[in-house]
Amino acid sequence: MLDVIAFDADDTLWHNETLYSKTQSRFRDLLARYEQADWSEQALYETEMRNLRFYGYGIKSFGLSMIETAIKLTGGRIQARDIQAIIDLIKEMLQAPVQLLDHVEDIIPALAADHTLMLITKGDLLDQEAKIARSDLGPYFAHVEIVPDKNAEVYRSILDRHGIRPERFLMVGNSLRSDILPVIAVGGQAVHVPYHLTWAHETVSEQNPASGSYVVLEHLGQLPATIGKLQGEAP
Amino acid sequence: MLDVIAFDADDTLWHNETLYSKTQSRFRDLLARYEQADWSEQALYETEMRNLRFYGYGIKSFGLSMIETAIKLTGGRIQARDIQAIIDLIKEMLQAPVQLLDHVEDIIPALAADHTLMLITKGDLLDQEAKIARSDLGPYFAHVEIVPDKNAEVYRSILDRHGIRPERFLMVGNSLRSDILPVIAVGGQAVHVPYHLTWAHETVSEQNPASGSYVVLEHLGQLPATIGKLQGEAP
Repeated sequence: MLDVIAFDADDTLWHNETLYSKTQSRFRDLLARYEQADWSEQALYETEMRNLRFYGYGIKSFGLSMIETAIKLTGGRIQARDIQAIIDLIKEMLQAPVQLLDHVEDIIPALAADHTLMLITKGDLLDQEAKIARSDLGPYFAHVEIVPDKNAEVYRSILDRHGIRPERFLMVGNSLRSDILPVIAVGGQAVHVPYHLTWAHETVSEQNPASGSYVVLEHLGQLPATIGKLQGEAP
Repeated sequence: MLDVIAFDADDTLWHNETLYSKTQSRFRDLLARYEQADWSEQALYETEMRNLRFYGYGIKSFGLSMIETAIKLTGGRIQARDIQAIIDLIKEMLQAPVQLLDHVEDIIPALAADHTLMLITKGDLLDQEAKIARSDLGPYFAHVEIVPDKNAEVYRSILDRHGIRPERFLMVGNSLRSDILPVIAVGGQAVHVPYHLTWAHETVSEQNPASGSYVVLEHLGQLPATIGKLQGEAP
């Protein structure tokens, strides 16, 4: 039996990585105007990883890392107007409409009728709250947890705080690294619904835990039947 | 009687505005090298206020607004190396040691022995959690709430979630706008301990609520006696 079904938000309930991907492509176009600006996605990713411990996750962090990468890749030749263009990209991202993934509009209200739902997302506080508000899904979630990172310690603390037994907790998300492996590590159940794009930082090596310890679905439309099976009901 | 005593963090438990103030002064020095860069604190403040609904509070938001202001005030002449210098200022701020205010080290452990303490702070999730960790005060607080903004609605939601009756809730903080007025508005008690610097955004007009509805102290060393009085004990 399940007491709580928790969902990741970005790339699980709504599109997110596509927004970063589109912005990166405009960033590349902007840098292409500088001769010898040796663009590589790897350079931006390395800046992001170097800055992660200072900035944490989210769009503002991404923006500051884009500016730093642009200065580096152009050898300091980037014009102020192009830095402003990067700031404008960031503001666009922060105002982008929330686009729900397929099936979300149907399954979330349906599951909320019978289960306690929780939203667990990492990133920027204001941005995540704004997206939850724009998604119109807020009222279906009994609890919303916005955390700086999603690791076993964080999940354990959430379960403790809400008095949830791990074996009666199910996490649904697109990231093996953030949504699945740490939940299994604390004794919870997990359903992996991969998104078609994965940020390099969220990828994990092929060394997954023992097979059978989590369920992989193609899309969220398959979730209600899976939950029925997990609860031992007829599918 | 009081069930919960809640504290603001920045400029209530540790110095914060001095850090912003020092950074602004280095930002001014940096811009002074550009002829006709018509520096005014007002310009940066206006950029921050314009960006608040996108960025929210915190150091990364401040940094993005400094970069935008620098581009504007130099008419786009600012060099990339000076933008990088602004990014470096931001990273310094994010790593700055936490300096506790006078009396904090004594009164927080003493109050925690007899009361349930809560920390309610706004700003950037990762940065605030890092400061709480660096302050070594975390273990004294039963609950930590990091919120995007501090208004009556937010306080009401915190009280509801924790099942706290407003009249048995005391908030202690340096900002009339964020720590005192909204708490009084929801029926709570409040102690104002002004800090020697106040960010323009946190100032309120002289129109305070009816006198006597909150207590003003000179420093936190006076808090235990005030709490004794509020609880009807001999001071």
